[in-house]
Amino acid sequence: MFALANHVNSVLVNSLLNKITSSKDVKILSVDELTALAKEIREEIVCNLNKTGGHLASNLGIVEITLALHYVFNSPTDKILFDVGHQCYVHKMLTSRRDQFDTLRQYKGLSGFINPLESEHDAFLAGHSSTSVSLAVGMAIARDLLSQKHKVIALIGDGGLTGGMALEAINHLGHLGKDVLIILNDNEMSISENVGGFSQYMKRIKETYFYRDIKEKIHQIEDKLDQAPLDTDLRTMIELVKKEAKAKIETPGIVFEKLGVDYSGPIDGHNIQAVIAALNEVKDKNTPQLVHIITQKGKGYAPAEQNAIKYHGVSAHSLEPALAEPSAKNNEPVPYKAQPVKTKGKTYSEVFSQALIELAPIEQNMVVITPATAEGSGVVKFGKAYPERFFDVAICEQHAVTMAAGMAKAGLKPVVSIYSTFLQRAMDQVIHDVAILKLPVIFGIDRAGLVEDGETHQGVFDIAYLRSIPNFKVLAPKDAIELRNMLFSALKNADGPVAIRFPRSQAIAAENMQNNKFTEIDYANWEIIETDYSSKSGDLAILAYGSMVDTGIQALKLISNKSNGSEPSLPILINARSSKPLDEFMLNVLFKSTKKMITLEEACLTGGFGTAILEWASNKKLKDPKQKQPEIFCLGVQDQFVEHGARNILLQNQGLDPQSIANFINTITA
Amino acid sequence: MFALANHVNSVLVNSLLNKITSSKDVKILSVDELTALAKEIREEIVCNLNKTGGHLASNLGIVEITLALHYVFNSPTDKILFDVGHQCYVHKMLTSRRDQFDTLRQYKGLSGFINPLESEHDAFLAGHSSTSVSLAVGMAIARDLLSQKHKVIALIGDGGLTGGMALEAINHLGHLGKDVLIILNDNEMSISENVGGFSQYMKRIKETYFYRDIKEKIHQIEDKLDQAPLDTDLRTMIELVKKEAKAKIETPGIVFEKLGVDYSGPIDGHNIQAVIAALNEVKDKNTPQLVHIITQKGKGYAPAEQNAIKYHGVSAHSLEPALAEPSAKNNEPVPYKAQPVKTKGKTYSEVFSQALIELAPIEQNMVVITPATAEGSGVVKFGKAYPERFFDVAICEQHAVTMAAGMAKAGLKPVVSIYSTFLQRAMDQVIHDVAILKLPVIFGIDRAGLVEDGETHQGVFDIAYLRSIPNFKVLAPKDAIELRNMLFSALKNADGPVAIRFPRSQAIAAENMQNNKFTEIDYANWEIIETDYSSKSGDLAILAYGSMVDTGIQALKLISNKSNGSEPSLPILINARSSKPLDEFMLNVLFKSTKKMITLEEACLTGGFGTAILEWASNKKLKDPKQKQPEIFCLGVQDQFVEHGARNILLQNQGLDPQSIANFINTITA
Repeated sequence: MFALANHVNSVLVNSLLNKITSSKDVKILSVDELTALAKEIREEIVCNLNKTGGHLASNLGIVEITLALHYVFNSPTDKILFDVGHQCYVHKMLTSRRDQFDTLRQYKGLSGFINPLESEHDAFLAGHSSTSVSLAVGMAIARDLLSQKHKVIALIGDGGLTGGMALEAINHLGHLGKDVLIILNDNEMSISENVGGFSQYMKRIKETYFYRDIKEKIHQIEDKLDQAPLDTDLRTMIELVKKEAKAKIETPGIVFEKLGVDYSGPIDGHNIQAVIAALNEVKDKNTPQLVHIITQKGKGYAPAEQNAIKYHGVSAHSLEPALAEPSAKNNEPVPYKAQPVKTKGKTYSEVFSQALIELAPIEQNMVVITPATAEGSGVVKFGKAYPERFFDVAICEQHAVTMAAGMAKAGLKPVVSIYSTFLQRAMDQVIHDVAILKLPVIFGIDRAGLVEDGETHQGVFDIAYLRSIPNFKVLAPKDAIELRNMLFSALKNADGPVAIRFPRSQAIAAENMQNNKFTEIDYANWEIIETDYSSKSGDLAILAYGSMVDTGIQALKLISNKSNGSEPSLPILINARSSKPLDEFMLNVLFKSTKKMITLEEACLTGGFGTAILEWASNKKLKDPKQKQPEIFCLGVQDQFVEHGARNILLQNQGLDPQSIANFINTITA
Repeated sequence: MFALANHVNSVLVNSLLNKITSSKDVKILSVDELTALAKEIREEIVCNLNKTGGHLASNLGIVEITLALHYVFNSPTDKILFDVGHQCYVHKMLTSRRDQFDTLRQYKGLSGFINPLESEHDAFLAGHSSTSVSLAVGMAIARDLLSQKHKVIALIGDGGLTGGMALEAINHLGHLGKDVLIILNDNEMSISENVGGFSQYMKRIKETYFYRDIKEKIHQIEDKLDQAPLDTDLRTMIELVKKEAKAKIETPGIVFEKLGVDYSGPIDGHNIQAVIAALNEVKDKNTPQLVHIITQKGKGYAPAEQNAIKYHGVSAHSLEPALAEPSAKNNEPVPYKAQPVKTKGKTYSEVFSQALIELAPIEQNMVVITPATAEGSGVVKFGKAYPERFFDVAICEQHAVTMAAGMAKAGLKPVVSIYSTFLQRAMDQVIHDVAILKLPVIFGIDRAGLVEDGETHQGVFDIAYLRSIPNFKVLAPKDAIELRNMLFSALKNADGPVAIRFPRSQAIAAENMQNNKFTEIDYANWEIIETDYSSKSGDLAILAYGSMVDTGIQALKLISNKSNGSEPSLPILINARSSKPLDEFMLNVLFKSTKKMITLEEACLTGGFGTAILEWASNKKLKDPKQKQPEIFCLGVQDQFVEHGARNILLQNQGLDPQSIANFINTITA
């Protein structure tokens, strides 16, 4: 624990951190100095994240491991692969990026994840979990084939290890016998609390019949052996074997050994001397090694130690008073002034979770599944209310989806709450296990659209890949009320897979929600939005999908303000809530009555909602060659990976903000 | 081993199999009768597959397990989940589908996989590997929530267990503690030989330092204990503990126990009495159980026992003389007449594999990766020629792709040889690990298009989902030579991810390949196909992608034959070899010069190649509103899952055969 006064002193007066200009500078420090440096780093992380927001608990937990890695190994020659990559802050501070830390996760600032485009010390890019061991195996193969000499190190958490891909990679690594070092950072927790998982079986092992039974027998033998006239040598030997066998059997070691990876540990991850010693021990071995290090998420910052889940990610200016930003002008600590917390509306995640809770009594066979995103998606609340109907399966998207398929086949109504980018992990399961049999699995697709986290987390592909799957319905609500009603309707009908996508943002019209009231909607019937700025017919039709309905309204407002809203020029605005199936009746009417059409979506243009309209138009041309068609213009996310930064900036860059859309409308109607 | 005479006798004279009208009939048989029945079943499988083709080795290996499952459990009340599902033939024979066996894998005949639409005894649908445990967990949760009583059984091979998803599911199952029975059918082999894998560490364990060390010490203690004056009770106890501990430690048991699943085995899978006893032992337990059963692929049929890989799947009329089809009219065996084997051309798989071998000396940094499909994709030959540059990672599509990304980042040029439907398993890895960093990983996508296996194996989604990923190139060659040149060019340029898709069929123009000759092609430049039936300009342009180029030529031939090839009516036929990027120069020319355009692709229409043209046209309209555009008609696979049957029938059903296309051209040009 540290207080503000210490922090200011260390930063300004006697800072070791100021002396670290590159990771090489770590190597000349003593253990005492490294310990002091660890403390300074923690202080700076807390202060910085109070400015920028970011992943707090995991970075506080990994300070000593990161220091030890740079102490023992030589980055960038040795390749250090951070799994997920959000625990890279210490690494960034040590590799010449400390100065830019106040730009963390800001547009054009430091990425919140590792990225080789940012530094040669970032050996790869990562934002999703469980990839590091596969990358390490690939890089080790390359190193050996190219006759290079360096270490390849995968730093993976116990949460990441629940991902099937990491297990595939360890299995393969054991088979190959390549020189790869895996550091298992075991904090017994992924984003939510871990499920299954290697870290858990130290607990479980003691409860299994086999071990109880064997142990009991061993105790009986020991009692008898104690009385038997054995010589000292033999007694020493027996003790030695018992100790070694016990150490192997009572840690996860034996599983890794069985898979061909040598195991050592567990090591106290906050004892820097112990961590350095453990790394030095395996440094020169040229076979697969795993060092098991136990850490505590949030280490050194009391609130995060006590509730690491809450402090997994923090917003700017949300931390406790005693740790606020010091005044740079004055060596004296400045009393913390609490930032006025904006009274936020509900997010779509919260609306979705609340709807699940309200629907639970009506839909007795509904169950909810989440792959380690219970907190982020808000469904943790459902889990608390209905624990027996809630399944957090750890970082196992594939298993989550196929398990849901099994449930649906057996009569349940599973709702899979999952982020758009993470559903990419289960594409095959969606096709092979859910869609072919047309099973009623509902996908609540959170973070669909642009998010501040950057390239790895942009939820822009879901419409394109889900729309190509037969039997799927792909929906997006315009607001909180529609989200609730879509979920209600999908559960009620339960006639096949339904995806409901919603963005990471505050929900529109959340204040109008009436608890416990749901209305069935026919989502294949689109809705005409009537406002002062749109009409029921016109030369121009705007088909807006999901989050873009509200943006469309704002855009029309801007135009109307300029044009004084002369009635004939008003376009028709459609809430095209289903990109599959399309509302063919409405499209037929619109194709006859409008000259131009704009589609709006917060997703990649290639294969997206707008494309669905183009495909429909092409089909219609075939059936009805004489019918004149409107010109169709599609707005959405361009064919590029979108960087990190505030969502409104990203939307603006893609021309998906109200002003850009208004400008576009003006251009094509000019 | 059995001879034909025995077979005929047993089938026609004294058949137990004839008495099995439902799986319940198995329950009243004695062990001797079951053993005899197993023999009859093997004979019938060999005879039947000699007529229809199908999965031979795995089904011969699983006869006793299937019999024992139906003997001990009550299908369909108890749910038996066959992983992958291609080892379901015995199950189908026992569940009232024996009569239809000669329709196996034929159009409108029995499926080669399990499918609940075919029988209530097929608890789910499966064609891909490693899904059964997740399904079982889902069904067990459903059973308990719905207060039902039955057993849920997942039957999974050791190959299936290498899939990360199965490991995710076992981990979760152990955590939940649900009543699920896993039967591990361990034949030490997936489709190719197994890699890593649980079955392997019985071998590896004996080589690890830890075990050698501990064992040595135990031996020393044993020697001393032998001389020590211990009483008999104590000696018995010590022996008992040693035996039990050894049994657990020297089998995969300990890994499963650690994950919370009780382990029993290994059991001889061809001793039906032993298998029944093992199942009875766990039948009434209500916690996760795994029974480890050792079987031999191809059991009972000598050629398959000796080469299970070769006999994994067999073609009709390919089996050995002694086992041919008996005459139904005569009880006497009829001498086998070898079927004239058609001199087949090379398949695209063979062409691809051969090109890899030829390119290996030129591209020294090229490596080849396959997820357990070395045989099917033909790259096993590359593996034999360049073992150090070849990586069969077992059924681990996710790991395969991310490992390739790591390799590419580290300077290699990895080629991932993978089936179209299996690449669905690695969609996220393709986006997150390959595409964002624009790494030069080449995907040789085999079985892209329609295949005879049915819904689970149709390779029709790849264009749609790959095309939506930024930085990707998505190519399809028109023939063997172009496939070679595409691979050559992709390796030479190595400037980002490239997918090359080709169908499961004989390669066009394979006879024209010149060994060791490669020509670089700019795949973003499409090619005008000049034949007697097509021209260099015309009112109609046909943009054909991949396999459809040849079909397009055939279609034009049909039209030309009718119309006597009057010059002005000849359409222009384009080999549109890249669906991303498009050849914008050529499209601009065509848009000016043609009135109508047809796109042809062997893939789903939603989001596919034709859609790419529609998107381009929509964009062009925006930039160049005055330019008149041709009408675009897209032909491809409809929005439906396509059943099993011969590829030519399936293509015809989708209107993708030459005649249908010719008819379509006639319709729109009439």
